[in-house]
This record gives sequence, C-alpha cells and structure tokens, in this order.
Amino acid sequence: MSLNTFGHMFRVTTWGESHGPALGATVDGCPPGVAVDEAMLQHWLDKRRPGQNKNMTQRNEPDAVRILSGVFEGKTTGTSIQLMIENTDQRSRDYGDIANTFRPGHADITYHQKYGHRDYRGGGRSSARETAARVAAGGIARAALDLLVPGIEVKGYMVRMGAMALDRSRFDRDAIDGNDFWLPDAAAAPEWEAYLQKLRKDHNSVGAIIEVTARGVPAGLGAPIYGKLDTDLAAAMMSINAVKGVEIGEGMAAAELTGTDNADEIFMGETGPEYGSNHAGGILGGISTGQEIVVRFAVKPTSSILSPRASIRMDGTPTEVVTKGRHDPCVGIRAVPVGEAMMACVLLDHLLLHRGQTGAMGPVGRIG
Amino acid sequence: MSLNTFGHMFRVTTWGESHGPALGATVDGCPPGVAVDEAMLQHWLDKRRPGQNKNMTQRNEPDAVRILSGVFEGKTTGTSIQLMIENTDQRSRDYGDIANTFRPGHADITYHQKYGHRDYRGGGRSSARETAARVAAGGIARAALDLLVPGIEVKGYMVRMGAMALDRSRFDRDAIDGNDFWLPDAAAAPEWEAYLQKLRKDHNSVGAIIEVTARGVPAGLGAPIYGKLDTDLAAAMMSINAVKGVEIGEGMAAAELTGTDNADEIFMGETGPEYGSNHAGGILGGISTGQEIVVRFAVKPTSSILSPRASIRMDGTPTEVVTKGRHDPCVGIRAVPVGEAMMACVLLDHLLLHRGQTGAMGPVGRIG
Amino acid sequence: MSLNTFGHMFRVTTWGESHGPALGATVDGCPPGVAVDEAMLQHWLDKRRPGQNKNMTQRNEPDAVRILSGVFEGKTTGTSIQLMIENTDQRSRDYGDIANTFRPGHADITYHQKYGHRDYRGGGRSSARETAARVAAGGIARAALDLLVPGIEVKGYMVRMGAMALDRSRFDRDAIDGNDFWLPDAAAAPEWEAYLQKLRKDHNSVGAIIEVTARGVPAGLGAPIYGKLDTDLAAAMMSINAVKGVEIGEGMAAAELTGTDNADEIFMGETGPEYGSNHAGGILGGISTGQEIVVRFAVKPTSSILSPRASIRMDGTPTEVVTKGRHDPCVGIRAVPVGEAMMACVLLDHLLLHRGQTGAMGPVGRIG
Amino acid sequence: MSLNTFGHMFRVTTWGESHGPALGATVDGCPPGVAVDEAMLQHWLDKRRPGQNKNMTQRNEPDAVRILSGVFEGKTTGTSIQLMIENTDQRSRDYGDIANTFRPGHADITYHQKYGHRDYRGGGRSSARETAARVAAGGIARAALDLLVPGIEVKGYMVRMGAMALDRSRFDRDAIDGNDFWLPDAAAAPEWEAYLQKLRKDHNSVGAIIEVTARGVPAGLGAPIYGKLDTDLAAAMMSINAVKGVEIGEGMAAAELTGTDNADEIFMGETGPEYGSNHAGGILGGISTGQEIVVRFAVKPTSSILSPRASIRMDGTPTEVVTKGRHDPCVGIRAVPVGEAMMACVLLDHLLLHRGQTGAMGPVGRIG
Repeated sequence: MSLNTFGHMFRVTTWGESHGPALGATVDGCPPGVAVDEAMLQHWLDKRRPGQNKNMTQRNEPDAVRILSGVFEGKTTGTSIQLMIENTDQRSRDYGDIANTFRPGHADITYHQKYGHRDYRGGGRSSARETAARVAAGGIARAALDLLVPGIEVKGYMVRMGAMALDRSRFDRDAIDGNDFWLPDAAAAPEWEAYLQKLRKDHNSVGAIIEVTARGVPAGLGAPIYGKLDTDLAAAMMSINAVKGVEIGEGMAAAELTGTDNADEIFMGETGPEYGSNHAGGILGGISTGQEIVVRFAVKPTSSILSPRASIRMDGTPTEVVTKGRHDPCVGIRAVPVGEAMMACVLLDHLLLHRGQTGAMGPVGRIG
Repeated sequence: MSLNTFGHMFRVTTWGESHGPALGATVDGCPPGVAVDEAMLQHWLDKRRPGQNKNMTQRNEPDAVRILSGVFEGKTTGTSIQLMIENTDQRSRDYGDIANTFRPGHADITYHQKYGHRDYRGGGRSSARETAARVAAGGIARAALDLLVPGIEVKGYMVRMGAMALDRSRFDRDAIDGNDFWLPDAAAAPEWEAYLQKLRKDHNSVGAIIEVTARGVPAGLGAPIYGKLDTDLAAAMMSINAVKGVEIGEGMAAAELTGTDNADEIFMGETGPEYGSNHAGGILGGISTGQEIVVRFAVKPTSSILSPRASIRMDGTPTEVVTKGRHDPCVGIRAVPVGEAMMACVLLDHLLLHRGQTGAMGPVGRIG
Repeated sequence: MSLNTFGHMFRVTTWGESHGPALGATVDGCPPGVAVDEAMLQHWLDKRRPGQNKNMTQRNEPDAVRILSGVFEGKTTGTSIQLMIENTDQRSRDYGDIANTFRPGHADITYHQKYGHRDYRGGGRSSARETAARVAAGGIARAALDLLVPGIEVKGYMVRMGAMALDRSRFDRDAIDGNDFWLPDAAAAPEWEAYLQKLRKDHNSVGAIIEVTARGVPAGLGAPIYGKLDTDLAAAMMSINAVKGVEIGEGMAAAELTGTDNADEIFMGETGPEYGSNHAGGILGGISTGQEIVVRFAVKPTSSILSPRASIRMDGTPTEVVTKGRHDPCVGIRAVPVGEAMMACVLLDHLLLHRGQTGAMGPVGRIG
Repeated sequence: MSLNTFGHMFRVTTWGESHGPALGATVDGCPPGVAVDEAMLQHWLDKRRPGQNKNMTQRNEPDAVRILSGVFEGKTTGTSIQLMIENTDQRSRDYGDIANTFRPGHADITYHQKYGHRDYRGGGRSSARETAARVAAGGIARAALDLLVPGIEVKGYMVRMGAMALDRSRFDRDAIDGNDFWLPDAAAAPEWEAYLQKLRKDHNSVGAIIEVTARGVPAGLGAPIYGKLDTDLAAAMMSINAVKGVEIGEGMAAAELTGTDNADEIFMGETGPEYGSNHAGGILGGISTGQEIVVRFAVKPTSSILSPRASIRMDGTPTEVVTKGRHDPCVGIRAVPVGEAMMACVLLDHLLLHRGQTGAMGPVGRIG
C-alpha cells in the first residue's frame, strides 16, 4: 500500500505537515555500514531551503535535520532510520482565512473532499514542505550509492522557466551550482532572474522544466514489467508537488521521430557496449543501459498568487481568492534538489533489488 | 515488490513470453459479485488484436482469453482470477538469427545484461504481446467499475502520429471507433493512413501520442503522497512498452504557463463544484476533482524496422541488424486499448483504496 | 518489503533503539476523522511502562508519547501519523561491557552476523523497548475501531507463567486489570508473585503464555489465502520479542482431537448463526466467524539473567556472561498490552481491507 | 496487499479452485539461470498427490504440472513463472447438496459471509487442493536454493497424529520417506496405520503435528522487526489449510522453562560459533543462527466426516450434515510436503532479501 511510502527495498515513508511541530522521513531497508551524519544530509537540505534569495519564498526555515535512529557511531545499522526536521517559522496566521476557502489550483478542495477533515494551515500535508523529508532521505541514498557503486553522479538543473529556455549549445555543467536557478548557463542567469522578478511584481508565477541525470549507473538496473526503472522514475517525479509531466530521454518528442531516427546504434567500446546516441535516456525495456540516465519533469506555476481568482467557500458560496503568505514565484527552482533526491532513492532501490535477485551490482550477462 | 505486479488493492500480475505456450494475468483483489465472462473480455482484446488491417503487424493471433479461476456462475468470487491467452501463431524461425544479436532500440541487450539468460524469441518477455494480458485484466476492471460507479467512461484515442497531429477543433468523440487509428476525426484518417503506408514502404516506423480520458470519476480518488492518482497513472502508462513520456492535463506545457493562466477557477454548480477550465487534467494534489481525467503518453517508433542499423553480437563483434518478422509500423495504434486498460485498473484500484480508508465511493467532505 | 512495517492498509512502521534519543511509529492508512489525543495513547502505554512494580524491570521510563503529524484539532486527517517517544533513562554504562560479547539467547550475535555493525546498547533495535511504539500505534487502531465498529473489545491476559497455570474454572474477566500479572483470577495473583520473586532472587527468569481475545468482531474479516486473519495474527504475535509459539483456538492441542470432537456445530440464533463451541478460535478458512477471536502466544524466559552462562566474544574467545542491567524476570507480563495492540492493529487492517474489497463492514452474504 | 500472494522478493501468487479447470502459481522474483524442469517439480507434487494409498483421499488427480512461462531452454529467465495444474477428476456431483448448506468446521459459512458469492464445489478456493500450487512453487524455490547455497536440506515429518506421538528417542531420519506417514520411526508406522484406519471406519478423522526442519541455512537470514524469519515462517505455516498453531524451537513449551534452562550457550567451533543446545529453533531476534531451523505446526482433524453434525442452511433452517465425497482421514499427512514447500519459499525469499540489503549470502559480521 503506497500511501506515504515509496520504494521496494529502500523504502521511504514521509510524514508531517507544513505547520505541525515537525516533519520527516522513515527510511527502511538501507544497507548497513554506510557512513552518514547530519551534516552530510544538511548539505542537500540547504540546497532546497527556503528564504535563501529573492527568487524564493521568504519563509525562513533552518530545516535542520536530526537522525533519531538507525545510525550508530556514524554508520547505518541496517535498521529503520528516522530523520526529523522541526518546523520553526510557522506563521499560521497567514492562513487562517483559508480554513473554509479553496484556493484554485491547490489541493485544498480535493483533500477536503477525500478526507472531510484536513490541516489547512499552509496546505498541511499537501505543502511542498514535505519535499524536505525527501531530500533528507535522498542524502541517505546518495551515501549508500557512493559506498556501493563509487562514481555514480546524480545531477539536476533547470532547462525551462516559462518563456526562458536553456540553449543546449551553451550547456555548462560547471555553471549549475553557481546561480540561483541551477542553470547550466551562467551568462543566461541574469536574464532568467529579471524575467522572474517581473512576474513576481506582477503578482504572478511561472512553470518550469527540470532535467535530472545520473552518470555512472551500471547496466542491468530495473525490474520489468511493472518495476521498470523508467516506471519508478516516472512515479517518483510525478509524486513531487505540482509536477504535470515526466519524460525519459526523447520523451514526448519521440512521437515525432521515425524508427531510423530514434534507434540508438550499438558499438563495442573498450569496456563494453557503447551507443551512437541516447534517445532512450539510458533505459531500454525498463533496464539501464549504462548510458547517462536522463529524466525531465514539468512543474506547473505556483498556484499561490496575489492575483485574485474566482473560487468557492466550503458552504458553496462564491468568493475571490488572493493567496497571501510567502510563496515561491517558481517552485520549479526548489524542485531541482528534490528531483535529485528521488533519482538517488530510485537508483539505490533498484541496485538493491538487482543485487537481491541476481547477486550482481551490474551486468550479469557478458558481452565480448 | 512490483516486478511483474501493479496495483495496491486490485493487483494484476502478468506472465508469459511472446513465443511461449501462453501468457496471461493473475488478477487479485477484485470485488466479489461482478458479472464477467470471456466474451466481455474478448471484446476489449479484439481492439488490440494483431493482424486486423494493413496498419498493423500481420501476425495473426486469435488472442482468445480463458478464465481459469475466480469466476463462478458468471460472477467474480473475490478470489484470484486467472486469465490465460494461448499463443498459436509463433513463427519462431523468424527470430533464430537474433539469438546472439542485439537489435538497436530493443530490450535484447539489457535483458541479456540483467539476467544473463533470456528468451530471445520475438523479444520474449519484453514483447508487446504482454499487453494482451493487461487488456484482459482491464476488462475485469471495467466490469467492476461499471458495477460500483455506473457511468465511468474510459476512452482513449490518438492525438499524434509522427508529423500528423489531431486538430483539436475537429475533435469528434463518435469518430474514434470508426477508423483504424482511433482518431477522433474521421476525415483525417485517410491522410494518416497514407502517411503510415508511405513509412512502411520506406522500411520505417513512427512514434505516436495517445490520450486516455475518464469521465464520471468521483472526486476523492487518489492516495497522497506516493500513491497519488497521477503518480499511479504515470507509472501505469510508463510501464507500457515503448512509452517515453507521460502527461497529466497540461503536461509538459505547464512549464510555459503563468499562475494566472494555469489556475482552474472554481464555481458552485448544481450538484457540486465546477471548474472554469481543466489545466489540471482532473487531478489536484494527487486526488481526483470530479472533472475529466486526462492523461497522455508518447510511444516511440517501433525499433523493429527493415532498415539496417549498426549493432553488435553477444561476442562483441560488429554487425548490421535488419529486423525481419511481422511488426507494427506504429505500435502507438495498438497502445490505445492498452492505455485504456491501465486507466481502468488504476481507477478501480483507487476506488477500492478510497472505499477501504473512508468507507465512501466519492467525496467524504461536503461542499455547499 | 516488510522489514520494519506491518499491515496492509493500516500500516505501522516502527523505528528506534533502546538507547537512542527516541523511538516511535509511523502509522499510515488510518481512516480520517478518528478522535485521537496523546492522553488516549498514554493510557495504553502506561500499561506496558517499565518500573511500575517489583515484578518488572526497574528502568524508569515515562514513555510519554507525542503526536507529531496526521492529527489536527483532535482528529486524524487520513495522512501519516508520527508517534514519538523520547528515551530518557538510558543507563548505557550498564551495557558497555557487552559491546564485544554475545549474550546467550539474545539477538546480539545474529544482528552482528547479519549487519556487521550494530547498536549494542541495551540490545539496540532488538530491545523490547520497540514494543512501546507498537502499543502507541495500537492506541490509534483501538480509537479507529471504536469509531467504525463500536463494541469491539480487545482483551489480553496471562494464562501461564512457568509452573503457574490459570485455572480456567476460576476465570474472572473483571480481575484482569486488578493485579500485576493481568491474571483473570485475583486470588491466585499472590501465589504467582511469590513464585516470580523466588525466581528473581535465584537470578533466574521464566516464560509465559498470553491469551488475547477480541469480542464483537463482525464475521467476514480476513483475506484468503495469504492474508488470512489467523495468518496475520500469527505473524503479528510471532514478531513480538521472545515469542516462540502462536495458537488460534485449540492451537497445538487440535492435533489430539478427532473430527467429531473438533467440529463447532452451527445453529441459527436470533441475529445470525451461533456456534455450539469455539474450537476454531473464531476463525474458519482465515475469515472471522463472528465468535470471540482467541489467540495465544508463548514468550520465552528473559535471556538477560544474573546467572552465568557460557558464551564467546567477537574475537571468538570464550567467556562467561552475567547480564547485569535492569531486566524483567518475566517479559511475558509486559507482553500483554503489546499483544492487545497487535490484535487491534490486525483487526483494523482487515476491517479496512474488507471494506475496500466489498464495501461492507461485516457480512456480505446473508443467512436466514 | 497479500490476498493471494506470499513472499517479499520471491513472490508466489496462487490461483484456482478445487473443481475449476485448473489451478496454479505465479512465481515472481526468481533468480535467473536456475535449472528447472517439469519433472523436477513433479517429484515434489507426487509427494502430496491424492489417491496414493488408503490413508489418503481416493480422489485420483495426476497433478501434472506445466511450466507456461519464465523458463527457457531449461533455465529460469528471471521473469514471472507460471505453473499450471489441470484438474481432471472433479466429481462435482458429490458436492451439489452442499450449495446451500454450511459444513461445520469448514470455510463454507465464512466465505459466504465474506463474499456473498462462492464456488461451493469441493470447497472451491478454500479446498486443500490449493496447496498443490504451493508445492509446485516450492519446487522452484528448492532448485534456486540448491544453486545459491548448496547443501540446504529441507525436511518435514510427522511427530503426532491424535493419540500417536513420535518417540524422539527412536528418531530415524532415514525412515521418513519409507512409510505413508512421513514418520521418522519405521517400526511405529504400522501402529499409526491401524489407528488411522480404525478412525476412518468410525467415520471420523484426526489432527496432527508436522515438524519441518532446514539444515545448512547460513546465519544472517531474517529481516527484523516485521519480516523476521520466524514471523514469516509462522505466517507461511498458519496460511496452510486447517493449521491452528505454529511453534519455533521450544514453542509453547518455552513458557514453562526458566532462563537458565532455555539459554543456548555459545562456544567457538572450528568454522564459527556453535551452540550447546537449540531451544531457539535456529532463530534469534528473527535472524538465523546457522543451527538447524525447527518449525512445528498443528493441523486440526479433517472437518469433512461421515458422522452427522448439526448445522444450518443458507436460509437459516437447521439441518444435519454428513460430508460425503472423498476425504483424507488425516490431512496432516499431506501437509508434510506443503510445509516443506513453504519452508523452502521462505528461506529463498530471505536469502534474496539478505543478499539485496547486504550483498552477502551469509554472515556479514565476522566472529573469530
């Protein structure tokens, strides 16, 4: 039953609401002996932390993570790991007026319809604050991957924000960590910032596309038919708040290609098969090929905007909603570390599955 | 462990290879008392059956389904249902030459790498024949939905095939079942056919986009955070052979919208909330809104083409592959009933989950 | 993957070690709208709390539970509930000498062998302190059962402690809560206490049998074949620390009966079927009959004793182990509320499963 | 959702009814490259096959198993394996009179109450014929164990049948396969047979206790807290038809022991730790110790007897039931190979889990 859990062998259950005392992740199935500490997790949490610059919400949460179980003397014990992040800056008064009103584009109305009783403060369980728990869990997954398959590199970045699109010819991996947009093009960042600030001043918001990649992933990961690597990556990304589309490799554009265009030809390299192209995004038949894994997902524009939108109250009467509070003009920016965390969790999960079924951490069948 | 199983409460496990004696689906968790017979399932299987017209593979399989368990005197008993489809037209000799060769774009190489030992005949387990089992299981799901929530209508159709795109202004629901392309535009079908036959004669193939919709779905279905309705739909569609992208509502295009554009405004209708638009595709926060559910997925062009592509053999030596055998020039066409089946299964699964947790088959929280 | 999780729809994942900062339970799948507060859970935790009388370990833990998520304004929201109990009285120095020594009868050696790295303090994850988290989760389950099927009464008690056995002819339900042994025979309690204190002074410990019953359970709960009610109860009880046997109804004694003895004859009562006896323990074919559910489990004697036993150190050298620290002379006593908690969780889980599959909270098929 | 599925990584889903066209098992998660053929599975099926001697039901089923998928050129491929056994000797007319009557001690009444619609012929899904599918699946598990950890030996036998009890001082492992009772005491078998034939002639039946053991199991298998090896064994055995109790090692008798009696002292042997006794049944803290695993389960007397018992009809009217048809006077006999199959499945499952999490097929932490 995957209500609040994802993963098969490396299982992450998140808990907590935006304005409750704390939120966190229960991580089960981690291999023992993985070096982990709070500082290591904090590094990743700081990437998605709110209030860091003017392109983000101004809610100021330290997002300090505590490890409550499953780690002893600096190493995982193989038992369940509890990661807790206390909420400190809950300005709940901002949200009092929405207890009985449904914000267009939010989960307010559907949570009400599903459960009948909801924590409306700051979106409660549907708030993007839940993703902090994912990032913490992703830190555990990264540490385990580093131990088991050194050299796997998970990296996410933005490729679109509204009308702004990455110019692929200017792609610069080294630029990603150097600007507020995780943009692989340092020179374009100021233009993106001007665009976003204009939208913010217009009381508006905008969508985005994030690309998450993984290099160094061995061939053979993925469990056909319903636990395919791409199936699980699609589920993982679609489960992130506000995501409306997921692509692997060519993605939706594959529909416009012919078979001769799309086939990734195979050659024999020095250490194994090599491919002439990567339309497949590193996955064939749900199993990794050893190429770079390439996933993209689209995040819709933040629904919480200062522009008035028509809606209704719980009693059915009409109203206009202007969402105050402190919101990201583009939630896509902070979705980058979240997408990375999900990628790391899925890869570790499938590495453990593959090792369990076959005993190998990479290819079983030899080539050459 | 979802290797060959999908679903939480309504669980489908498929089995079988393209050229083995049979394939099928083990369906567990179906409600008791649902009227089901083989003819009813056959109706849906016939929609995806090969060899029906010149736009499909010429493999001629009757795809006759047998119900071996779980149904007694015409009704489900609540126990596990076994659906078996025997393979009859296995021309395995077509495939003998690929035992040691990897076809570009196929799962041959990754299955070999993952397992070391594979049934190479016709793609074995990775063949799209597996989807016949899904369609049979989807027939069970449709029958159960009909009993539990009369009026749910699941409908899929093609919206793109290579350079051909549906003109939305000409959308005609009634046209869908009347042409070989499940195209909601009868007048455009001949042009699509000409386009596809040209590609076939050029020994080529092409991709497609399928849209699957569901009307009449009650609000409240979907299990946040990791069993969201859109999460499970994304996984379900991505698990179909050759799928490279999945979209809900606006999908990837959401990235280009602003918050004011994207918000679906809410009004009070006679029987409940109504929305001014459906950018969300009928799902907010992972839970159905009661609007039409809209999912799209992209299918890559068939990799099995008669045009030669560079590849390698198992021993690492280079070769050129020309895939003979009988293949669909556009597998997207036959993916339409498969996408419908997955939609039906996911909806039933979430209906049962929601009923289990809340006791309701629709909204718990009242509005108005 | 049930490493640290049990349940299908009502899922409980426990975490935490004996001497870590805290332990707890992540409860997922609870119905919304259930009235729950910390005091209500504390009531059940106090039943298993250590240090309450001389028949227990003298470790003094308040076992105060905090609800960190999933409950809003006194009611469950349907989202994941986090229950945390902080450890306060960790006298870890007692355990320093066992870091490299394996206590006979403990999990020290097997945790070491399985994981290579373990929290040895107080047994770490294998400590019976983990059961506090179960009792807290069980409190949630009881509250949900009370709301959904008023009148279900879960009650456990001791029926054996070493040489002391309950005289069934003196069974007095009202006596159970009135003595330190949860013994349904007030007059016998002093004799049990004298027996146990003698063992304690002899630096020894003793085993026990606990019987857990549930009245008012509707017929129809249980999911054949592998999620039978008795299967899940057996798993639930066997997962409790130190349990070595589980019985339903007649249990092991059924082996000595003939078919004529064992059959529970059926009669028609005023409101439904009634039975002439309850050899089956309220379960037929894995499904509840509506009779009292009767489960028994045996707890082995506490392995932590002051009498020296032969063992080895991590380096393989021989040693004698005398387990100091503060231990229960009969862990079976504190297993009573734990068994009750497991019963409540399993019943709620199966009630939700049954409701999900059939829409009913009791019998679907009518009789009479 | 484990309705008809058991196992975590090695997952078995059974399907089929007593008098349907066929029954079988869908086996998912098997390692690739395991040599398997139908004859190998048939060997185990023949052990539980009905109609072999006068101590069994006279229903004559060949129980011929067919492998429909997942095995290619004599080896598993890592994909889902379908095992089908056709029913041939369905004398359904024997059962026509019980369509509206509930047999005491059977699941007739509870299946009716749970589902409202059931296949009553021969007990339908609740028939012990379902266990044939388990034995087939167990054959796959045995073959995989043989490949992965050569030397694991799973062996079951009877230790009690009504008033007849095994004299442990005469235990002879070599005698087990040489008599109709899987009795480790050749000289006692005639007495057991006389006892059983007397009961049969009296139109009666009797219960039994089966002990299933496994030698050569490496230390380290088992996944605390809720996937403990003993937890999963208890669930596996309790899920077998008519089982009412499960014991590990000392079992229920542990309740009568003191801590000094019960502790298995540890010594250093030549290749690893050795134990002075095996009260624990080879499992500590839910993890295997490397000693012999010892599980016992009690089977109640067959409820289908020719002696009349009081019952009711579906309309509530009273009746007397005499169960005709062909039934085992002691179902415990045929439960021996079923218990072995469950043991094999659980061991393989935990071996794969352990290998997945730790990469090892035995101890991770060294001793000595």
